[in-house]
Amino acid sequence: MDSRILSRADIEFLLYEWLDVEALCRRPRFSDHNRDTFDAMLGLCERLATEKFANHNRKADQEEARFNGTTVELVAEIAEAVAAYGEAGLVAAGQDYALGGMQLPMVVEKTGFAWFLAANMSTCSFPFLTAANANLLLAHGTQDMIELYARPMFEGRYYGTMCLSEPHAGSSLAEIRTRAVPQPDGSYRLFGNKMWISAGEHELGENIIHLVLARLPDAPAGVKGISLFLVPRRLLGADGKPGERNDIALAGLNHKMGTRGTPNCLLNFGEGAFTPGGLPGAKGWLVGKPHQGLAAMFHMMNEARIGVGLTATAVGYTAYLHALEYARTRPQGYLPGHRGRDAKQVMIIEHADVRRMLLAQKCYAEGGLALNLYCALLVDDQRTAPDEGTRETARLLLELLTPVAKSWPSQWCVEGCSLAIQVHGGYGYTRDYLVEQFYRDNRLNPIHEGTHGVHGIDLLGRKVAMEGGAAFAALRDRIATTLEKVANDEQLSSHGKALRARLDGLATVTRQLVADPDATRALANSNAYLEAFGHLVVAWIWLEQMIVACGDSDLHRGKRQAGRYFFAWELPKVDNMLERLAAVDDTALSMQDRWF
Amino acid sequence: MDSRILSRADIEFLLYEWLDVEALCRRPRFSDHNRDTFDAMLGLCERLATEKFANHNRKADQEEARFNGTTVELVAEIAEAVAAYGEAGLVAAGQDYALGGMQLPMVVEKTGFAWFLAANMSTCSFPFLTAANANLLLAHGTQDMIELYARPMFEGRYYGTMCLSEPHAGSSLAEIRTRAVPQPDGSYRLFGNKMWISAGEHELGENIIHLVLARLPDAPAGVKGISLFLVPRRLLGADGKPGERNDIALAGLNHKMGTRGTPNCLLNFGEGAFTPGGLPGAKGWLVGKPHQGLAAMFHMMNEARIGVGLTATAVGYTAYLHALEYARTRPQGYLPGHRGRDAKQVMIIEHADVRRMLLAQKCYAEGGLALNLYCALLVDDQRTAPDEGTRETARLLLELLTPVAKSWPSQWCVEGCSLAIQVHGGYGYTRDYLVEQFYRDNRLNPIHEGTHGVHGIDLLGRKVAMEGGAAFAALRDRIATTLEKVANDEQLSSHGKALRARLDGLATVTRQLVADPDATRALANSNAYLEAFGHLVVAWIWLEQMIVACGDSDLHRGKRQAGRYFFAWELPKVDNMLERLAAVDDTALSMQDRWF
Repeated sequence: MDSRILSRADIEFLLYEWLDVEALCRRPRFSDHNRDTFDAMLGLCERLATEKFANHNRKADQEEARFNGTTVELVAEIAEAVAAYGEAGLVAAGQDYALGGMQLPMVVEKTGFAWFLAANMSTCSFPFLTAANANLLLAHGTQDMIELYARPMFEGRYYGTMCLSEPHAGSSLAEIRTRAVPQPDGSYRLFGNKMWISAGEHELGENIIHLVLARLPDAPAGVKGISLFLVPRRLLGADGKPGERNDIALAGLNHKMGTRGTPNCLLNFGEGAFTPGGLPGAKGWLVGKPHQGLAAMFHMMNEARIGVGLTATAVGYTAYLHALEYARTRPQGYLPGHRGRDAKQVMIIEHADVRRMLLAQKCYAEGGLALNLYCALLVDDQRTAPDEGTRETARLLLELLTPVAKSWPSQWCVEGCSLAIQVHGGYGYTRDYLVEQFYRDNRLNPIHEGTHGVHGIDLLGRKVAMEGGAAFAALRDRIATTLEKVANDEQLSSHGKALRARLDGLATVTRQLVADPDATRALANSNAYLEAFGHLVVAWIWLEQMIVACGDSDLHRGKRQAGRYFFAWELPKVDNMLERLAAVDDTALSMQDRWF
Repeated sequence: MDSRILSRADIEFLLYEWLDVEALCRRPRFSDHNRDTFDAMLGLCERLATEKFANHNRKADQEEARFNGTTVELVAEIAEAVAAYGEAGLVAAGQDYALGGMQLPMVVEKTGFAWFLAANMSTCSFPFLTAANANLLLAHGTQDMIELYARPMFEGRYYGTMCLSEPHAGSSLAEIRTRAVPQPDGSYRLFGNKMWISAGEHELGENIIHLVLARLPDAPAGVKGISLFLVPRRLLGADGKPGERNDIALAGLNHKMGTRGTPNCLLNFGEGAFTPGGLPGAKGWLVGKPHQGLAAMFHMMNEARIGVGLTATAVGYTAYLHALEYARTRPQGYLPGHRGRDAKQVMIIEHADVRRMLLAQKCYAEGGLALNLYCALLVDDQRTAPDEGTRETARLLLELLTPVAKSWPSQWCVEGCSLAIQVHGGYGYTRDYLVEQFYRDNRLNPIHEGTHGVHGIDLLGRKVAMEGGAAFAALRDRIATTLEKVANDEQLSSHGKALRARLDGLATVTRQLVADPDATRALANSNAYLEAFGHLVVAWIWLEQMIVACGDSDLHRGKRQAGRYFFAWELPKVDNMLERLAAVDDTALSMQDRWF
């Protein structure tokens, strides 16, 4: 096992000491489970991640996915990795027994997946998109679709993608032009070009199931005229097996700075590379209702967004552990006042500034993991909590926290990777060490599945105000409960006060901006709102961890020290943001193009 | 000309409107110069940078410097570029006429060099290190050394390096082990391994002059036992021309995340690859006095450090201009409230959050350039100001500002490159656009020529206290002069007050920490000190620019808006740092290895 992938001790702290996931086993759905089955699952993931994913993380970066003119060539280890993942039943880990699943709680499934993400972010794209695709079909597909397409995806035989963007339509999905033409048999023929399709073409498994956004002939303009289609790479024959090639052609690959093991594809639908059934167009089937494809796709998108947050966290986490090991084994320099002839060089972890960098990384990585596992538990609560109130609150919190769970780790765990390079010094800038790859790989996460800018507007322009502000109120209640717990705690009450003051400030500025009749003005600083909101939420998450970490073990002491670091050096970053938001600062808004 | 390299308009603003470099022409050394000769120099640099340096920036990244077993292979364009640079007389631009120079002021020379750095950071390593090497010989070498080695470097025929680090000795030069053995003829033979040697081996020009730190047999331990040696790649023959190979062998290249056009070499001295004159060892000559090599090397290091700051700035600047052009030409999305059927997509520069990102980049890039040109002017003042007081103050300010001029752009212009990617969205993550390379290239700058951590300790542990705090007092005087100018200015007085409050805070905490008898404690947060100090200095630099930019031109309005942005969103970042410093926060210091 490579102890630099993730920390088993931290995971056990989060799952069992903090989140008490064992309590989930009292719910009927999880009644076959207990800590032993959870641990067995996590042990399996750690082992497979180490042996089958970490083994080719660098190789797949060096030998990038390659377009050979017809298909994509990948290093052989990717096929071995995803096959092992599928054979272990992990694509369906959380699904019903009836679907071949293990009925594991989401929080355990996601913890297990974090091992793979930390070991090899690129190779994880294949199973990750497949599971999200199959989950969408479970929610919005017909029974036939579930049996014909979702089931083989859960079995690890088929793979899935999401096809949203087009060359001219990235963040602005309203501009999608791909057309879907109805056929007499109830199917559709699709024509158009899709871009940025991760894992869009390859020779893994038996089939690739594309979920494609397109417009029907009578579609209204904009986002309310987008429908969702299931378009398989190979059409199923009479025997139910993948046969004839559908008219989907790989037009090229994007060559990226990082995540080079994931082929990022331009796909042409219906341009005549193939003529399935002798007719033009890529053959597909409508998923859900006409013109309501974006809402259905958001089912997958929201899962993908939390997945991106977990990915960013996992990469930041392994970068932190790599830096930690380096700092413990690299001798360099002397402590102040120890420079004489008999002085011995110290390991660089002895230098306060190196410890500062490691503490910051620990805050980002462990804070991000705690936040993401908290969100995963909300999914479990939303689905399986015994009382409706808990389920409803979980739904609200999840909606609100999705942009935070996506964006906060994407921002701070990239910073963590940068600090991991810095701890390594010049060595960290070379390709002999993995930290430079982590830094490149992780830089993707603030971009895809909605940029930072998009999530800022989602949070301030929609989420905090939705349903009369119910979600935001639910979060404030949760935080208030935590604050009550520390009100009389000798060590933690000052942190509680610090958090309460900022939370009050956030609430005030939220009311003000939501009520502002000038949306342009109110939303102009939504990025600062997202950043301040995220830091507040993570401060709360750290306070929660500090409450639990009240013992004398090294792990507990480390948690408390990291929390102390967050409250001393990180949380105050929000103060000026809240001030500028309250002042409705218009510096960016009033800047003119010609003044640049 | 590629308008995305640097902004000629900004450069003219900084040089002529703000710094009044034309006034330098009244000094005897520059009396042949005037704005026309300066502009001709800058125009030449812009043209050569565009035609000969920018042309292969991507190619040299893709076709990385390669070790073929004996030497380094580079793309052919590098040889053309450095030859053109040398033939134009630019290595010696600031030197005496007697040395073939143009006697240009440093501030003009550095501005010209910024064009090359922005066009191609990697290729610039060759002339940059050569000039710094030759400058060291001018200061510390013998007349023979100047004639035999410095002169051909200034002529662009020889190249230079600095050889400090060894595999086990990066930041901690006290650990250097390379040995220098005296010979009967007054020369020395060197034995040892050097690492991280940029441009350490190649086939450009006629010779490579290595400046090497090594220990004499009787050397005391630590940094007071290091001497400096001149060790040419080829020994000069009786005809004065490079002939026999010296015993310096390329052992390998580091493969880096960025700056791949610069070969980063491991060099073996005296391991027997060659036997010059039939004797073992690499033949060299002592530069300066025995055991005082580090002080001499710091001559080159300080130049290199300000050079690193200028490099980081230039790369951040061109990344900003690339993002600006992209934002002006990429349509995507609608403005709030403009989403109906007749709505037209806007260029993304219309989105407030994109303008926020561009404003931040503008602040970092233009602020960094202004800071670095200010430092270059201090070099001119130190050397050529008519009165001793000005010369002395310039020397003090330069000593104090060197860690800031190195570190501030290295931190913030990497952040600027990240924002440039973000403005590009998914495209920015691909290698079809240059911004991802800028991001990778620029990540080197916080590492080499002293890491952030090293400069924090240099600033707080040495520079602010040196000579009874004279340098810090000189800086405060300068800033006070600026603050007086804005005291009654309707638009700028609030910025002046904001800066004064923080400056007072910095002065208080500086006094406190310098007086602290516990150096370990006092220096534990020196990174925060460096960051706060840097942001204060750059706030001052922005206020200076705002004072000058009082007109109605787009350029002046843009300067004022960027300054406003810096004061609203950037300067307040120092508040918590100053608070934590004053509290002598010990979170990092008291963290224990086993708690991680």
